[in-house]
Amino acid sequence: MENVTIIGVGLIGASFGLALKHAGFRGRIAGVSSRPALEAALARGAIDTAQPLEEAVRAADLIYLAQPIRRILDTIPKLDPLLKPTALVTDAGSTKAEIVARARETLHGAQFLGGHPMAGKETRGAAEAEPGLFTGRTWVLTPSAPGELETPPARELIRWIRAIGAVPVILPPDKHDRVVAYTSHLPQLLATSLATTLAAEPAVCGCLEASGPGLVGALRLAASSYEIWGDILDTNGPAIAEALGAFISRLEEMRDGLGTARPAREFEIANAFAERLRR
Amino acid sequence: MENVTIIGVGLIGASFGLALKHAGFRGRIAGVSSRPALEAALARGAIDTAQPLEEAVRAADLIYLAQPIRRILDTIPKLDPLLKPTALVTDAGSTKAEIVARARETLHGAQFLGGHPMAGKETRGAAEAEPGLFTGRTWVLTPSAPGELETPPARELIRWIRAIGAVPVILPPDKHDRVVAYTSHLPQLLATSLATTLAAEPAVCGCLEASGPGLVGALRLAASSYEIWGDILDTNGPAIAEALGAFISRLEEMRDGLGTARPAREFEIANAFAERLRR
Repeated sequence: MENVTIIGVGLIGASFGLALKHAGFRGRIAGVSSRPALEAALARGAIDTAQPLEEAVRAADLIYLAQPIRRILDTIPKLDPLLKPTALVTDAGSTKAEIVARARETLHGAQFLGGHPMAGKETRGAAEAEPGLFTGRTWVLTPSAPGELETPPARELIRWIRAIGAVPVILPPDKHDRVVAYTSHLPQLLATSLATTLAAEPAVCGCLEASGPGLVGALRLAASSYEIWGDILDTNGPAIAEALGAFISRLEEMRDGLGTARPAREFEIANAFAERLRR
Repeated sequence: MENVTIIGVGLIGASFGLALKHAGFRGRIAGVSSRPALEAALARGAIDTAQPLEEAVRAADLIYLAQPIRRILDTIPKLDPLLKPTALVTDAGSTKAEIVARARETLHGAQFLGGHPMAGKETRGAAEAEPGLFTGRTWVLTPSAPGELETPPARELIRWIRAIGAVPVILPPDKHDRVVAYTSHLPQLLATSLATTLAAEPAVCGCLEASGPGLVGALRLAASSYEIWGDILDTNGPAIAEALGAFISRLEEMRDGLGTARPAREFEIANAFAERLRR
């Protein structure tokens, strides 16, 4: 792997470039993105050169798509006529089933292997990129068939994922999307709906000074951008609706169980789960 | 105010003792609590002496009840025959209406003024006490009538609350309980129910490595102890049920609105609210 092309050099794309260099990658990293993003990524040293899509893809051994989901879906069909047959295309999209299906339908010239590094931070953009962003984080890979992990470019990608300190985890695309509906999309919508519930109660809003440190933590995700989340909701609707439904049932049981022994049992299960997550 | 008696020297009670001393209080602080709690509070320097309830209350100018709610409700009636007529009784209970009502019914020998310092941390006990625990935090006071704030002992308490760096906020007991149902009890039950929802999904639980840093934050409160929360739920049931109902409606609208323009609007409201809370 000599030439890496990163399409979309925001926080994740630029951090991937920095992480590769930090881990000893000596090839060339090209960036394809908006002018301001490219300038920030060049200034940060995350890419070596800014190029138009066509030129950057023709030369690439690895193409890393780190755009918002909708943009990834738009980019994939454009890559096919440009790819070297030995190239590997991977991505960082937060939902995988639609992206993997799009690649299966439209990418015939080279291999595609879906990915989702479980990393991020509250701020965005290449200026915020860090070489250690993926250290200790899970990096999900979503092959359609196990053989996809055994090709030479896939093996090389996995070596680099490990080299930058991330932990590869293999999941089928559908299973990935169902898991993150519960572990990521549900917590996001709880924070969003907690904020809108509070915002709709003037008597409560007028007394926000009467809130403790717990509320700030519970609302941290309420600042998340719909620019990112709109695509996630649009491409994982059924799994998210299922997770919301399961949660609503549980919360209704909590409400209806106030004054009974039920809340004690719920706290016990939650305590054990929190303890397990900490380990 | 020469003699302060703190009943219940856990995190809050012992931190109050340390904070008073740190702010220049030169009187005597007596503690009433379990033997291990008293030993930890003495070792920490949060109290000067450990005494039985009767002796400690007879001598006190200020009695600070920092027990769990149910224990506060049990302690209040015992105080009446022991109190100096010039004494002030206050408390740190997380719900106020039942406590204030109990004091009105059973405390005739001296003044009661309900309180709720909006401070805490994830660890408990006198060994974790800090003189700065209340610095910059709201300290809600819940008089039944405004005149209660104007008595000499109440004015002196408010001076000390300010001296330890806290910010007094005045709310009627019922209004306090409704506000914290939304700002504190609702976020707690969301974290608890998120944990139990995830725990009930084996396929999701088996893939917890595929979760990002957001889940850890969303589940921080899931470790909270029912020993504390049982009393809160038992003494604020109707307001909590109302807050849960409002939240469930909002989350149902989110679920039913997936694929429409609704989520974008909800994110916009939530973003504005998060921004307002940050300021």
